[in-house]
Amino acid sequence: MKKETRLFIPGPTPVPPAVAEAMARPLIGHRTEDFARLYARLEERLRVVLGTKNDIVILTSSGTGGMEAAVANLVSPGDPVLALVTGKFGERFAELAKVYGGAVEVMEFGWGKAVDLEAVEEKLKARRFKVVLATHNETSTTVVNDIRGLGELTRRYGALLVVDAVSSAGGMEIRMDDWGVDVLVTASQKALMVPPGLAIVAASDAAWKAMEENKNPRYYLDLLAARKSKQKYNTPYTPAVSLFVGLDRALDLILAEGLEKVYRKHRLLARAVRAAIRALGLKLMIPDEYASPVVTGVWAPEGIEVDRLRKEIASRYGVLLAGGQGPLKGKIFRISHMGYVDAVDILGALGALELGLYRFGFKFKLGEGLAQAQAVLAEEGEE
Amino acid sequence: MKKETRLFIPGPTPVPPAVAEAMARPLIGHRTEDFARLYARLEERLRVVLGTKNDIVILTSSGTGGMEAAVANLVSPGDPVLALVTGKFGERFAELAKVYGGAVEVMEFGWGKAVDLEAVEEKLKARRFKVVLATHNETSTTVVNDIRGLGELTRRYGALLVVDAVSSAGGMEIRMDDWGVDVLVTASQKALMVPPGLAIVAASDAAWKAMEENKNPRYYLDLLAARKSKQKYNTPYTPAVSLFVGLDRALDLILAEGLEKVYRKHRLLARAVRAAIRALGLKLMIPDEYASPVVTGVWAPEGIEVDRLRKEIASRYGVLLAGGQGPLKGKIFRISHMGYVDAVDILGALGALELGLYRFGFKFKLGEGLAQAQAVLAEEGEE
Repeated sequence: MKKETRLFIPGPTPVPPAVAEAMARPLIGHRTEDFARLYARLEERLRVVLGTKNDIVILTSSGTGGMEAAVANLVSPGDPVLALVTGKFGERFAELAKVYGGAVEVMEFGWGKAVDLEAVEEKLKARRFKVVLATHNETSTTVVNDIRGLGELTRRYGALLVVDAVSSAGGMEIRMDDWGVDVLVTASQKALMVPPGLAIVAASDAAWKAMEENKNPRYYLDLLAARKSKQKYNTPYTPAVSLFVGLDRALDLILAEGLEKVYRKHRLLARAVRAAIRALGLKLMIPDEYASPVVTGVWAPEGIEVDRLRKEIASRYGVLLAGGQGPLKGKIFRISHMGYVDAVDILGALGALELGLYRFGFKFKLGEGLAQAQAVLAEEGEE
Repeated sequence: MKKETRLFIPGPTPVPPAVAEAMARPLIGHRTEDFARLYARLEERLRVVLGTKNDIVILTSSGTGGMEAAVANLVSPGDPVLALVTGKFGERFAELAKVYGGAVEVMEFGWGKAVDLEAVEEKLKARRFKVVLATHNETSTTVVNDIRGLGELTRRYGALLVVDAVSSAGGMEIRMDDWGVDVLVTASQKALMVPPGLAIVAASDAAWKAMEENKNPRYYLDLLAARKSKQKYNTPYTPAVSLFVGLDRALDLILAEGLEKVYRKHRLLARAVRAAIRALGLKLMIPDEYASPVVTGVWAPEGIEVDRLRKEIASRYGVLLAGGQGPLKGKIFRISHMGYVDAVDILGALGALELGLYRFGFKFKLGEGLAQAQAVLAEEGEE
């Protein structure tokens, strides 16, 4: 019988059994001391993960809800906004700012390129922006942008830096306060290893202050209301209690392991996947320099319909890879190695990829990718 | 964080999520119509798996309890018993027959050899035995014995054939009635994909009749009492209700897939593992001719303490392989590919084995085993 499909898509990611078990327990009431203690525990530990002392609120929404909340609460009609776009999620941020009436200037860096800090600095020099929108890990292109570098610029030029860290938090280093990020948004279903349904928004004092002056209509996504309830560790509206419980358990796991070790594992798996892809004669989308440690993009093998290949790998081997989005649809596939994924999982996924390629007549030596991935993994823990 | 350990031991084997979910549901009472319907459904479908029209009873015990029940109910003090021993589980059967006072003649074929039918025939010619005890899949040595051939002999010479099919049922063909097996014992935690705790005993009319004449004291393991309760689809003592429910769900999965397809998968995975082991320059314990399709035994790599190797692979990669038992302790390791295990799992396990060997300084080319396993798997479904 076929096994449950294994997720190698960049969210939702596999949920650890301990998290699933915690979520399966009887619900607790959301207007109780138990819930307040839970929320307090979550905030305290999310601060560690995000590298911040700021107030953090948790919304019951997908990551996009968190992105909208950041924009809706900060960008009043006519506010000058600089949107740095390196892919689909950068575009979404820009679109949100337009929806809320921002005077949005979009800087497009191309799908597959990282933000160019020099170009951004020129833009900031030329004109004052209230808000700069950036994506930390651009999931659609598997690019990592230099948020630390952006933070230096926005501090220097006096703009609020708003960062989509949906697919980065928990998988790679984030130092919100040190880097000068004003609003940071993440979500439950990526490297935090919880099913979808929670958005997490942290904001600096400057950002909270700016929100108070904001004129946009908002209700469900009102971050000031969320923050006010959060002072008593409660929520304005009914929260997704079981997901809060799951996040609590997931943070147990992440912090017991230690953030540095978790990040190192992600980097190791990324290197293993990249070594395998090269060995198979496939082309990596992104140079090592700014490639994501949590998801790897690969150009479609020549002469193969990549979405048919993915379908075959999913149906025959139970391994779900991601396709391309927007202009990359049909042109790439992506392997996620985000969250609850280990070396053995990655070897299995690469093995299935090879078997799929083989069935589609792609010319390569079976096992060659695996051998190179193993060569990387074999170094693990030699320190 | 470390993932849950993946079981590649020959039982307990991984439990499908659908089975675990079914077992997690609220218990049903065991003296209810629901339970009776459940037991009836189990018997009807276990008959298909075991290839029999015989009465089948389910005991709340491990497989050894089922083996003891078979012996305790058939072997009266002084009864002549021929015990065919090809490993640890053959030895256990012989020991049980001695415990119950049988006049046991033990035929030892050696750990790693299969039963020699000619030698058995000579023995049966020379003397009349009431009972012949045999092991179908000898888990300790990864040998499959020819039960069909034995059944021809026991029919010809008028003995009851009692078979330990604990690790074979659900993983390879069993035709109890066609082959002339009189008592067949299996258990929940092997290829049937349920946690340990249930023994399943099927017996022919001749066997039930012989049990009626048996003089041994027995109570919990009294098969006639179990059969009597089973007429009303009940049990004499409290059954492990949740395991019954799990077995029900597991049989759904197995029969929805189709037995022939399930067996073919086991053979394919065995061939993939064997190809990998050969490519790594390791030595398979058992020649193809009588090697198990559900578990593969491998001689320890020269110069490596195999139990340390296994420990390293388990702690570093979360892949649990089995060691040797009895005289094979420290001399072999075993990889199970029994039950809820697929090609991607096997590639992961072999990848972990290679990484472990590499860390222990074994000389081979990383990935070579995987490549050969893939070459076997690539043939799958080409028919």
